[in-house]
Amino acid sequence: MSSGSTLSIRWTRAASTAGSSLVPVWRSDRCRTRVGTGEAGYTSYGGGRVDRDLRRPLPRCTGGRRSAQAAPGGAADDRGAGCARPLAAPLRLAQGLRHRRLRRRHLRSRLHPRRPRVRPLAQGLARSLAVRDADALAASCRLSVSGLGRQTRDPSSVLAHLAERVSERTPSDRYGGGELVERLERRVAELLGKNAALFFPTGTMAQQIALRIWADRARLSTVAFHARCHLERHEHKGYEELHGLRGLLLGAPDRLLTLDDLEAIAEPVAALLLELPQRELGGRLPEWDELVAQTEWARRRDVALHLDGARLWLCPPYYGRGLDEIAALFDTVYVSLYKDLGAPGGCLLAGPADVIDEARVWRIRHGGRVFSVWPYVLAAERGLDEVLPRMVEYFGRARELAAGLAALDDLDVVPDPPQTPFLHLYLRRNGEKLREAALDIAEERGVWLGERFAVTPLPAVHMLELPIGASTLELPVAEIVALFGELLERSA
Amino acid sequence: MSSGSTLSIRWTRAASTAGSSLVPVWRSDRCRTRVGTGEAGYTSYGGGRVDRDLRRPLPRCTGGRRSAQAAPGGAADDRGAGCARPLAAPLRLAQGLRHRRLRRRHLRSRLHPRRPRVRPLAQGLARSLAVRDADALAASCRLSVSGLGRQTRDPSSVLAHLAERVSERTPSDRYGGGELVERLERRVAELLGKNAALFFPTGTMAQQIALRIWADRARLSTVAFHARCHLERHEHKGYEELHGLRGLLLGAPDRLLTLDDLEAIAEPVAALLLELPQRELGGRLPEWDELVAQTEWARRRDVALHLDGARLWLCPPYYGRGLDEIAALFDTVYVSLYKDLGAPGGCLLAGPADVIDEARVWRIRHGGRVFSVWPYVLAAERGLDEVLPRMVEYFGRARELAAGLAALDDLDVVPDPPQTPFLHLYLRRNGEKLREAALDIAEERGVWLGERFAVTPLPAVHMLELPIGASTLELPVAEIVALFGELLERSA
Repeated sequence: MSSGSTLSIRWTRAASTAGSSLVPVWRSDRCRTRVGTGEAGYTSYGGGRVDRDLRRPLPRCTGGRRSAQAAPGGAADDRGAGCARPLAAPLRLAQGLRHRRLRRRHLRSRLHPRRPRVRPLAQGLARSLAVRDADALAASCRLSVSGLGRQTRDPSSVLAHLAERVSERTPSDRYGGGELVERLERRVAELLGKNAALFFPTGTMAQQIALRIWADRARLSTVAFHARCHLERHEHKGYEELHGLRGLLLGAPDRLLTLDDLEAIAEPVAALLLELPQRELGGRLPEWDELVAQTEWARRRDVALHLDGARLWLCPPYYGRGLDEIAALFDTVYVSLYKDLGAPGGCLLAGPADVIDEARVWRIRHGGRVFSVWPYVLAAERGLDEVLPRMVEYFGRARELAAGLAALDDLDVVPDPPQTPFLHLYLRRNGEKLREAALDIAEERGVWLGERFAVTPLPAVHMLELPIGASTLELPVAEIVALFGELLERSA
Repeated sequence: MSSGSTLSIRWTRAASTAGSSLVPVWRSDRCRTRVGTGEAGYTSYGGGRVDRDLRRPLPRCTGGRRSAQAAPGGAADDRGAGCARPLAAPLRLAQGLRHRRLRRRHLRSRLHPRRPRVRPLAQGLARSLAVRDADALAASCRLSVSGLGRQTRDPSSVLAHLAERVSERTPSDRYGGGELVERLERRVAELLGKNAALFFPTGTMAQQIALRIWADRARLSTVAFHARCHLERHEHKGYEELHGLRGLLLGAPDRLLTLDDLEAIAEPVAALLLELPQRELGGRLPEWDELVAQTEWARRRDVALHLDGARLWLCPPYYGRGLDEIAALFDTVYVSLYKDLGAPGGCLLAGPADVIDEARVWRIRHGGRVFSVWPYVLAAERGLDEVLPRMVEYFGRARELAAGLAALDDLDVVPDPPQTPFLHLYLRRNGEKLREAALDIAEERGVWLGERFAVTPLPAVHMLELPIGASTLELPVAEIVALFGELLERSA
């Protein structure tokens, strides 16, 4: 609270359709601004924002208060934290180094590999107590085993690529219209063999809308999907809260859906959502015949089929079939532009023209018709031109790499062999030790392995997600395998 | 339908929670893809997309059909249409000209003004039959009386400005977190004197969420706003369809709200939304005392106050009060980043930290947590640095310009005098003639006046919206007045 104002709490009777109840109302004597009625706060997303804010003086005349329950930034989203903090001297030095110099240093380190140093206790403690700035460390690395290396995300590098793709006469898109965005929509519709496609800012929005449309058409609110579906796990149940849909969870969390799971459904269902490849299961794919059998089950029951194809781009090599042939099994298809293709955001929903026209209205309702989206569109076109044609190559590399990694002790590749250029690595190590070791390697060798080692049902095992892409191919397979060997050794 | 496939329609009994009914199902014998059940299509947004698509061969294996009811692109969004068409030779020439040369030509034309030529009938007919490419014409103009000239929107020019604002080390934001976006959120929260602020892709999303939160806290679904509120007019009733809110419409469409309107409310209300300035009324503002009286009415009734401040940036000069002082009257405030500030999109919702934390969850539900939004953020920072400090200057120019324009016959400035750097011009002319004349002027003089002459309750009168900004100030007031004189003469 700013100086000179006091905060008072009084109880007020809140009128409500469901009767009335006493609720506390906070008031500042200075601003006379009602600021809340004491509901619980929610986990705050976005790296440490709350923490940092609390250290800063509150702005003048806010009349507000902080929810005591607000948690610091969620672990899944904390890469952006603290970029403004002063960097440690060695790191600042490393950041000044250019690609080739880092590469030289890296090659030298391979010839004379440094073994994990035994650090004095005090130093080790100091290091583990200080939160290392992983984002700055990632920025200092010029090599990354992850296919979508940080470099492809950096604003400066994206801007340079976008500038190559516009002329002085390229007009901005505007409220969803304009040649720029329509060109991308036509191109992706054609790639997927659908009549029409529509840009959305997020898959969360696109998929809720697709399911809502199918539910409205079936006059039925039940939609069915796997227990690890993005809608169930990562969207705070928007489908239920905003659209009143009921999610019927199918199968079991740790395996793919089967035809048996579908045949066990004993109630009417408006739509079935399948995810290809299934991200949380290591990019696994059902065999083609199984997939066809599942979609035929839906056809027989007049259940609409929606494809969560966030990473559909990765599937053709395994099936030996085109994107359109896979998409033809489904009524509507969502594909992401920022996963794999590397755009800063955005996605497309493709399907029959009348469904897409209806989705256009829902996009407005959701607040998804952004004034202009050309930065996403231009970057996505680059992805379609430069990344998509390399998928077969990435897939081959994923298989080679998996073979090498699977030979390491205490490391499982899932699935083995990979079905897409996307792997999950399960490492029998402590998660915090893995992260520290990975950051050490980033600092010393200039190669980014990742930092998110997720918990698994086995407390002794942690999981790293590894998409294979252009950055991965800059490093020889043997080198990546050696780095993971070192990671395991350092975190033992 | 692609060759080799046929389309059959059969009737199927659709299971439904509300009984069952016969619905037609279209099937392609080739794809076996259900593509729709014959609901009416919706107006398609986005300039002529449907028209153009219909001329193109359908992609392979779609199994789809076009909704017969799909209308061609909405009139409000057709600027982007047909940019790929070959330009007429004179226009192509004009596009090659640089700013100074156009200016010279323009000044020359003022010395020897060309009167409207009497065109041979055939030529005039041909011209009116051909749809002129307004977007390409706008692109060829290097001067614009509209404050947010097309030039500020062009991807090439925006990219150049953004590149100045990033270093090689600037990291991308990620899922709503990261220093880049948090820096903007802190800055705008401080400008508005609020505890916290959160980025949203659109105001549609931000405002629905703000009202939903206030409604939940009041345990009451009624929210009140003016009949011309954006939520009521331009969002396909998302607030009702997604959040189950009831909109209580206040006052009358063609005047500002008054305290009397509020005192006439005879039912409990969770939140009151006020719009400052009110865009559809020419950027009108209530007098300060009236505004304070309205907010005090809400305080007395424990009604939460939300400010639709899409163009709040324009208000301080009239009130002689800071943004924070105006915002302090409200609990939550939405401000746009693309209106006036000139970013390609995006907005912020500011308010108490616990409300913003709750809004963060709703942003995920709505599908508004875009993977990264740094292009909007960087452009908005530029707007705050370079546009916001000039508002007093723009306001002064708006008043000078209004005085000049009001002297023209058959033209009304609304409001007169202007209360913000934003005007509505009511011209007693046929809308199509105005548009043709404005495009003629664009073609011949290289100055863009606009092309959207909206209908008004008087069929003989059409309205042009005129935001005053940097582009406006590049032209002397007398010159702009002369151009509107010419517009009136040419369209008489």
